[in-house]
Amino acid sequence: MLESTIAAIEPPDESAMAAARELQGRLTKPAGSLGALEELSVRLAGLAGACPPPLPEPAAVAIFAGDHGVHAQRVTPWPQEVTAQMIGNFLAGGAVVNAFARQAGAPVTVVDVGVATPLPDAPDTAAGGLPRLVVANVRRGTRDLTVTAALTRDEARAAVQAGTRVADELLDAGARILVTGDMGIGNTTPAAALIAAFTGADPAETTGRGTGVDDPTYAHKVDVVRAALRRHDPDPADPLGVLAAVGGLEHAALTGLILAAAARRRPVLLDGVIAVSAALAAVALAPAAVGALVAGHRSAEPGATVGLRHLGLDPLLDLGLRLGEGTGALLALPVVTGAVRVLHEVATFDSAGVAEK
Amino acid sequence: MLESTIAAIEPPDESAMAAARELQGRLTKPAGSLGALEELSVRLAGLAGACPPPLPEPAAVAIFAGDHGVHAQRVTPWPQEVTAQMIGNFLAGGAVVNAFARQAGAPVTVVDVGVATPLPDAPDTAAGGLPRLVVANVRRGTRDLTVTAALTRDEARAAVQAGTRVADELLDAGARILVTGDMGIGNTTPAAALIAAFTGADPAETTGRGTGVDDPTYAHKVDVVRAALRRHDPDPADPLGVLAAVGGLEHAALTGLILAAAARRRPVLLDGVIAVSAALAAVALAPAAVGALVAGHRSAEPGATVGLRHLGLDPLLDLGLRLGEGTGALLALPVVTGAVRVLHEVATFDSAGVAEK
Repeated sequence: MLESTIAAIEPPDESAMAAARELQGRLTKPAGSLGALEELSVRLAGLAGACPPPLPEPAAVAIFAGDHGVHAQRVTPWPQEVTAQMIGNFLAGGAVVNAFARQAGAPVTVVDVGVATPLPDAPDTAAGGLPRLVVANVRRGTRDLTVTAALTRDEARAAVQAGTRVADELLDAGARILVTGDMGIGNTTPAAALIAAFTGADPAETTGRGTGVDDPTYAHKVDVVRAALRRHDPDPADPLGVLAAVGGLEHAALTGLILAAAARRRPVLLDGVIAVSAALAAVALAPAAVGALVAGHRSAEPGATVGLRHLGLDPLLDLGLRLGEGTGALLALPVVTGAVRVLHEVATFDSAGVAEK
Repeated sequence: MLESTIAAIEPPDESAMAAARELQGRLTKPAGSLGALEELSVRLAGLAGACPPPLPEPAAVAIFAGDHGVHAQRVTPWPQEVTAQMIGNFLAGGAVVNAFARQAGAPVTVVDVGVATPLPDAPDTAAGGLPRLVVANVRRGTRDLTVTAALTRDEARAAVQAGTRVADELLDAGARILVTGDMGIGNTTPAAALIAAFTGADPAETTGRGTGVDDPTYAHKVDVVRAALRRHDPDPADPLGVLAAVGGLEHAALTGLILAAAARRRPVLLDGVIAVSAALAAVALAPAAVGALVAGHRSAEPGATVGLRHLGLDPLLDLGLRLGEGTGALLALPVVTGAVRVLHEVATFDSAGVAEK
C-alpha cells in the first residue's frame, strides 16, 4: 500500500506551470508585483496539472497526536497527560487551532495515532462544528529513543499508513488542501533528531526550546538528540528506518498524509517543526512529493528553518509562532487561497481595457 | 474639523493592555507561543480600551485614487490614464484587490480624491458585491512637485478631510477595521519624498522601483525626489505643509482616514508604501495615532521599511508584494482577526482542565 502510494507520485506538470506564468503576465498588475504569490500559483498549477489550479477550498485540518518515551528523559517540564488533555480541548473546540480553523472554515480531524494515557470522554458531537476523533492508535507512545528504537519498522509503517488513510478520507470527502496539525508532549525532540538525520545538520542547529524550556533543559535536550543519533546512526537512505529509530508516531503519520496527498496531486500546507520533519521523511521516500508542499510559516523552532532550507521551501509567514497544532499553517491558508484566486478571478489588461506601459 | 479629530486621539488604555497580557498567560498554549499575535492582541486591546477588543469584522477597504503632476518627469513608464482605467477595473470587480476583498468578505469603496483623466462609466451597480464609487475630487491631479508645491495648503487639508469623511462613513456603517488602498500612477514618487521628509532618510533609501522601473528611470526617480526635497525643504514639524509640498491627494486622504479611525479607537490596517507615507504624516499630526496602526506587510518598496521602522511597527507579512491597491493589507487581515479571536474563543488551562508545566 505504501509502495503504491509512493509510485503514484509524479513530478509537476511543466505545461501547466508555463500556462500559469504566462497568465500571471497578462493580469492587470505590474509583472511580478505579487511577489511570492506568483511563484506559489505556478507551483500549485504544476501540482494540479491545470491552470488555473482548483481553489484550495475547502481545507481540512488533520491533527495527529502521539506520546514519546523520551519524555522520561525530562526534555520538557509538561506532564505527558497534557497530550490527552489537549485532545479533550480540541474536541471541545477550545484550543487555538479550533479558533483558527473556525475562522478558516476548515473542519478539524483529531487522530490518536499514539497517545499514551487515556483519552478524555469525547464531548457531545451532536453539537455542530466540533472536531471528529479518529482512533488509530499504533501503540501507546513511542519507546525512549535514548535507550532503544522509538518504534519497530512495522510500527513506523503502520503509523505512516494511518496518515495515508486519513488523507484519503479527507480528500474523498472533498478537501482540496490538507493542513497539518500535531500534538504530543515532547515531540520536538524526535523532530530535531529526524531533521538532523535527514539534513546532516548538527543537533545544536536542529534542536529548539519547544514550549520554551530553560537553558539547562535545552542543553540537556541537545545532548539527548545527539546521543540518540549516535546510538542509532540512522541512514537517511532508509527513511522508514529513520522514522522507526528516532521518530514519533505523529511524525510518521504526517509523512503518510503528505505522500497520499502528493499521490493525488493535492497540496499539503505544512505547519511547524513536526510537519517539516515529516516532510523530510516523505521527500526522502518520494522526492517528487516536494511539489505538493507549501510551507505555511517559519516556526521559532530552529529545526524548521534547517528542514525548509533542505526542502527548498520558503515559508509564507514568519510571526515567531511555536505552538504547533496546525495554527501557523491555518493563518497562512488565506495567502495560499489568494494566490490561486488571482488566477481565477483577476481581469487581463486586454479584457479590462487597461493600457500597458 | 481636522483639529477636533486630532484632539480626540488618545493614548492606549494601559489597563486593557494589562488585562490582555494576563489573559494570554492563562490560555491553553505555552506562554508566548503565538509570537507576534500576542503583542498585536495587546495593542488592539489598548486601542479599543477593552479586553478582549472587538473582533475586527467586518473590515472595509478604502481605495483612494489620485494622479500626479510629477508624471511629466517620466518617473514611470505607465500612462497617466491607467489610474482612471484601473478605477474602472476596481468598479467592475476585476482587480487583485477585488479578488482579495471578496475572499476577506470586505466591501470596497473607491474614492476619486484627485484623478486627472475622466473616469470610465460606472458598471451596473445593481450587481451585488461590486465596489461603491465616492467622488471627492479635490483637484485633477497634483502639480509637478519638481516645479512647485504639489498642492496648496487648503487642497492638502481638503484631501485629508475627504479621508476623514470616508472613514467616518465606513465606521458609521459598522466597519470594525479599515484597510488602506491606493491607486495612482506615479504615486511612489511623492511617497518616497514624504518618507524622506518625515524620517530624515536619504531619498536613495526611500525611493523604490514602483511598478518595476529600469535602472536609468530609477536613478532619475531618486534625483527627482532629491530635487523636490531641496526645492521645498519641507518641515516635518508642519505635516500639512509637507503633504502640500511633496505629497499626493491619495496620500493626504489616507492621512485623514487614519486620524479619523484613531479618534474613534478603531484599527487601520496599512498596505504598502503609500499607506506608510500617509501614516508618517498622521503620526506627525497626532503621535498617539500610532496606536491605531497595524502594518499589514513589508512592501518591496524600500521606503516602506524605512517608514515602518520610524513608526516602530513590525509588518505581519513579508511576501515581496509591490502592487498596492490594499492587496497586502487584505492578505494580512486574517492574521489580525486571528490574533483577536484567540482572546475571545480560546479556553483557559483552568476551564479546559489542562495541566500546566
